[in-house]
Amino acid sequence: MQTMLKQRVPTTVGKQAQALPRVAPKIGRARNTVVAQAAPATAKVAKPAISRDLVDKCINAIRFLAIDAVNKSKSGHPGMPMGCAPMGYVLWNEVMKYNPKDPYWFNRDRFVLSAGHGSMFQYAMLHLTGYDSVPLEQVKQFRQWDSLTPGHPENFVTPGVEVTTGPLGQGICNAVGLALAEAHLAARFNKPDVKPIVDHYTYCILGDGCMMEGISNEACSLAGHWGLGKLIALYDDNKISIDGHTDISFTEDVAKRYEALGWHVIHVINGNTDIDGLRAAIAQAKAVKDKPTLIKVSTLIGYGSPNKADTHDVHGAPLGPEETAATRKNLGWEYPEFEVPQDVYDVFRAAVKRGDEAENEWKQACEEYKAKYPKEWAEFEALTSCNLPANWAEALPTFKPEDKQLATRQHSQTMINALAPVLPGLVGGSADLAPSNLTLMKISGDFQKGSYAERNVRFGVREHAMGAICNGIALHRSGLIPYCATFYIFTDYMRNAMRMSALSEAGVIYVMTHDSIGLGEDGPTHQPVEHLASFRAMPNMMMMRPAGGNETAGAYKVAVENRKRPTTIALSRQNMPNLPGTSVEGVAKGAYIIRDSEGHPDVILMGTGSELQLCTEAADILEKEGKKVRVVSFPCWELFDEQSAEYKESVLPKAIEARVSVEAGSSFGWAKYIGLKGKHIGIDDFGASAPAPILYEKYGITTPKVVEAAKAVMA
Amino acid sequence: MQTMLKQRVPTTVGKQAQALPRVAPKIGRARNTVVAQAAPATAKVAKPAISRDLVDKCINAIRFLAIDAVNKSKSGHPGMPMGCAPMGYVLWNEVMKYNPKDPYWFNRDRFVLSAGHGSMFQYAMLHLTGYDSVPLEQVKQFRQWDSLTPGHPENFVTPGVEVTTGPLGQGICNAVGLALAEAHLAARFNKPDVKPIVDHYTYCILGDGCMMEGISNEACSLAGHWGLGKLIALYDDNKISIDGHTDISFTEDVAKRYEALGWHVIHVINGNTDIDGLRAAIAQAKAVKDKPTLIKVSTLIGYGSPNKADTHDVHGAPLGPEETAATRKNLGWEYPEFEVPQDVYDVFRAAVKRGDEAENEWKQACEEYKAKYPKEWAEFEALTSCNLPANWAEALPTFKPEDKQLATRQHSQTMINALAPVLPGLVGGSADLAPSNLTLMKISGDFQKGSYAERNVRFGVREHAMGAICNGIALHRSGLIPYCATFYIFTDYMRNAMRMSALSEAGVIYVMTHDSIGLGEDGPTHQPVEHLASFRAMPNMMMMRPAGGNETAGAYKVAVENRKRPTTIALSRQNMPNLPGTSVEGVAKGAYIIRDSEGHPDVILMGTGSELQLCTEAADILEKEGKKVRVVSFPCWELFDEQSAEYKESVLPKAIEARVSVEAGSSFGWAKYIGLKGKHIGIDDFGASAPAPILYEKYGITTPKVVEAAKAVMA
Repeated sequence: MQTMLKQRVPTTVGKQAQALPRVAPKIGRARNTVVAQAAPATAKVAKPAISRDLVDKCINAIRFLAIDAVNKSKSGHPGMPMGCAPMGYVLWNEVMKYNPKDPYWFNRDRFVLSAGHGSMFQYAMLHLTGYDSVPLEQVKQFRQWDSLTPGHPENFVTPGVEVTTGPLGQGICNAVGLALAEAHLAARFNKPDVKPIVDHYTYCILGDGCMMEGISNEACSLAGHWGLGKLIALYDDNKISIDGHTDISFTEDVAKRYEALGWHVIHVINGNTDIDGLRAAIAQAKAVKDKPTLIKVSTLIGYGSPNKADTHDVHGAPLGPEETAATRKNLGWEYPEFEVPQDVYDVFRAAVKRGDEAENEWKQACEEYKAKYPKEWAEFEALTSCNLPANWAEALPTFKPEDKQLATRQHSQTMINALAPVLPGLVGGSADLAPSNLTLMKISGDFQKGSYAERNVRFGVREHAMGAICNGIALHRSGLIPYCATFYIFTDYMRNAMRMSALSEAGVIYVMTHDSIGLGEDGPTHQPVEHLASFRAMPNMMMMRPAGGNETAGAYKVAVENRKRPTTIALSRQNMPNLPGTSVEGVAKGAYIIRDSEGHPDVILMGTGSELQLCTEAADILEKEGKKVRVVSFPCWELFDEQSAEYKESVLPKAIEARVSVEAGSSFGWAKYIGLKGKHIGIDDFGASAPAPILYEKYGITTPKVVEAAKAVMA
Repeated sequence: MQTMLKQRVPTTVGKQAQALPRVAPKIGRARNTVVAQAAPATAKVAKPAISRDLVDKCINAIRFLAIDAVNKSKSGHPGMPMGCAPMGYVLWNEVMKYNPKDPYWFNRDRFVLSAGHGSMFQYAMLHLTGYDSVPLEQVKQFRQWDSLTPGHPENFVTPGVEVTTGPLGQGICNAVGLALAEAHLAARFNKPDVKPIVDHYTYCILGDGCMMEGISNEACSLAGHWGLGKLIALYDDNKISIDGHTDISFTEDVAKRYEALGWHVIHVINGNTDIDGLRAAIAQAKAVKDKPTLIKVSTLIGYGSPNKADTHDVHGAPLGPEETAATRKNLGWEYPEFEVPQDVYDVFRAAVKRGDEAENEWKQACEEYKAKYPKEWAEFEALTSCNLPANWAEALPTFKPEDKQLATRQHSQTMINALAPVLPGLVGGSADLAPSNLTLMKISGDFQKGSYAERNVRFGVREHAMGAICNGIALHRSGLIPYCATFYIFTDYMRNAMRMSALSEAGVIYVMTHDSIGLGEDGPTHQPVEHLASFRAMPNMMMMRPAGGNETAGAYKVAVENRKRPTTIALSRQNMPNLPGTSVEGVAKGAYIIRDSEGHPDVILMGTGSELQLCTEAADILEKEGKKVRVVSFPCWELFDEQSAEYKESVLPKAIEARVSVEAGSSFGWAKYIGLKGKHIGIDDFGASAPAPILYEKYGITTPKVVEAAKAVMA
């Protein structure tokens, strides 16, 4: 089959991209001019001593970069950047702590544009404040092939972008994850008698769309429960969504809802021009330490556009030449397309020196910390290096056939608890199924308000937010390894978050138990059937279904090693044997021979997870009848597909067309390995409510059926 | 491939199940004894004149049926029924209007157990009130193969169960859909001068789990916005979920949140014994006509169990013999396992006569209505018969090759607007993408508070609730045909609701536009790649991807015809030709030849949607080079797989192994049709942000690549 793989921009591009053209000539002057006026590096909200006219000019510069870029690309969303430009000015010029020349500086404030369609807002800010990733050329390449300025913010493309947003609601949940990571690391490492080495805020701008999505309510309920005081969300309350005014579908009292969720809520009534109001709100937000803050900022979408502001027209389409001209006139913007006045650069580019100073202050604090707490510093450095500890994988136990039969969810529990002591970055938990998913780390307590240093996270029944929060934890880039768990069927509740893991290179480990009709009596609403196929089809997601203890160990080894690729591990409710031949090494190849005949096999039986044993049992029977049988364990399709052609041929020789696959799930996709002549033993309909052994019998997922199918394909 | 299809219990089983054993002998007496004391058929909350002791006995009967059934099956959730039994008593014996002997009586109150794991609660109520579907034998068969009492409530198994719940949060959204359907039909048909013919409440019990799920916030925000006054939700506030006390993850103020969502909120502080409090709350709820009501009922999970109440132990595991004995003693329940005292039956079975009377009253009202409004009655009867109008499909236009090239989303708009006048049951809308999905019915206004008779529904950015609400509309069984729309990628937000459509036989039409990288600049967060595969793998879901106008018409024809099977229609953003040979009839077969060679073809090119044209263009080129080419359009795999072996062989003869599939999506699954030797032209990685034509070029989804692949497979 022919497939196309787009080369990904490496995530380190910011550091490597020195060759990119910059708006360089005047930066030096800008640094010297503006720095004195800038907010101090400790990022307290202080009104800088620049004139209001210049502030407005800076704000309009954001607006017109967005307008011009969207016009040029003939595609995009100018309305949000135009409305949110004042927030951008205050956050980037007065509030946030970041270093444009070191986008991944550990202690930076994190910013998340949950309303990701307004990406030009973020690119404008990155450009204006001097990030190498967004020179003016890249602004002009907005939404074009291979640009660093794609349609929605993508962390794997653009240094300075923390997470990938666009699907509404994901970003605010990522922000909760980022804030969780900060709270956790701060509690683990900061000491009362030295300056904190973990100390940053997480800011997020979200819009009406994010607010309507259920996922945001889930994550914000948790953020309120956890009391994440350093999470500050600015709600762009512009009352316009794609269908028109939010009156038609969204009339709830958002502020009251957030109060109910345990948030501190502030309203800035005029987000269009009340800069002092924004400043004061952020200062108040910072003053409340035990609750996250929602700042409801009422704005006009497309502020400044005389004919399109406050309408859907300005949401997702270019202003066009006429309205752009009218807007220029209306806002008194006398500069041509893509021109940023020098005094504006002078203001914003002060961020470069400010960032450098802030990072140096932090480095100084680290030195003091290191001197006083050398052991803790070593731990901190090792963790935040994002390198795995040496020999960590040796902690994973292996099993012999005579070892006790267990469910792979039990083996998973063993692995999590084997890894917890050797992987200090392992954090995670379940969506209210810890006793079933078996995901608690016994060496740790619960991450809760007052115990942020603990590593077991209680997500409640909030699968979608759980996934997106874990993406935030992973993309905090501090060495944390997030895992999360629920019944496999409920991946249906969190699928977009899982896709965002795969897309945004967040190495989340999805621990998904009760992986088939083997779940039994709970019935078809709880029995995954098509889910293995659905994740095998998802790019960059490794879908694992281990058989027994060794393969569960192997699945965790792969999952932990892959820090830029998520892994979903499907685990059984029911017991299964530790089959001879299964191995950690085998899992790494995706599929491998666990039992073979002498000479050319008559038939290949391949299976996964709890059904692999049916293949070996069938092999016993067939061999007694004189057949030569190869049994292939197939825990991970993606890894097998990535092996060499030679290896693949050695496992599944083209010449052997008699093939049977066995898996208590959909046949969908297996044709790729069994061909048009093969047979699949599985289930292509929904399951039913009954004890698991009855279901296997009724659906014909049994050893005699495997034998029968093998004979049929050999005939 | 071998697959297993479980025979489904027909949904009419209630009427056919006369042969099922009943607890019959004493029903007659029960009717006579209790009816006089029962609530009037108009279902006002009236305190019946039975002693409090007998009330408690009735309530305990519910508890012990649940305890005994869960014990017997060694699996299930006794805690919820034990805590909610008082609500069950009040709702079924005093409040709700229903006819056990006609479970599908149109004007019944709808009840939804959103906390579906407590299914024994519902089965206990159905048994006690005399539904034929749940005789005592079925209670004893709880969670067993082929029983009518599966682990979670399944509408397609058990008459009396309205919707399928279990995945938390789905039920409350279904309830919103049921209430929407009632409000809509009431506004359309009721007349001020005759008794209403559409007049029922929707009741729902939901728990902490449902409350935590984001989907419930989405749907309840809409219910508040719409002011669905006849929706009454009872929140079983027992503060226990699987991980333990809700303190660990769920400390928000739910009542305040619901007030913020526009609900009327009441708190019953002691839901365990305060029967009058429950009665009063429901009466208050009914008195508020312009808002849905949430009754927060604080209960003890497992009420009555001396050692397990108020703990997680009683949530999802049998009480076991010892604790059951202790509970019997504690509650003074002197009856053996599964025995229901006659006086309890006497009370509950009064529902049979009451229901009969209520239905007769309604029939009387219908007669009056019919006499006064014969035209409207005819419309009402035609609609609620759930039969499609004669010749409706003739409204679907067809297209010739010379007709204008359009995007299939535009053709979809044409179809929706062609069908709107001939299908009076068509209702639906988009999750805030109406101008992009093109889903507005021009003959109708918006369904809003004050305009419930309108048919365009504005869901806001709430995909998951949208799907689940549509399931509720479909399962109202009143002839409404719900459709809903978003970008195809956002099926990831609503996947479980879509699966529930497929499982629960809700014929929802999912109108999913922007179906590939053809979406262009919005980039990979918005470009579906693996989604076609993921839905083709889902049982009972028809996944359509039409090419041009005729196939879009064909897709709608299939979708509308299938009232017990959902259809997802993937539609393009971009234009495509109306290819010769494409037809409505072809779509019904799933795959069909649109162009053929004379004699045995050298190669088969198969494509879908916007890529079918690449197949025909490649065929032009290959034919010029003397090759014989067959082009197969493949809009629906499920339908093709259901054709006869002869037909399938006629389209894809086994002898022709040179096959190429073309689709701007994952190769996953295509091996089933192209075999191990075929090639797929598509994309197995995420897309990127750029104009669509550039993306097609970069990913190699072009006519020259199809030609190249065809030559390779012919070689």
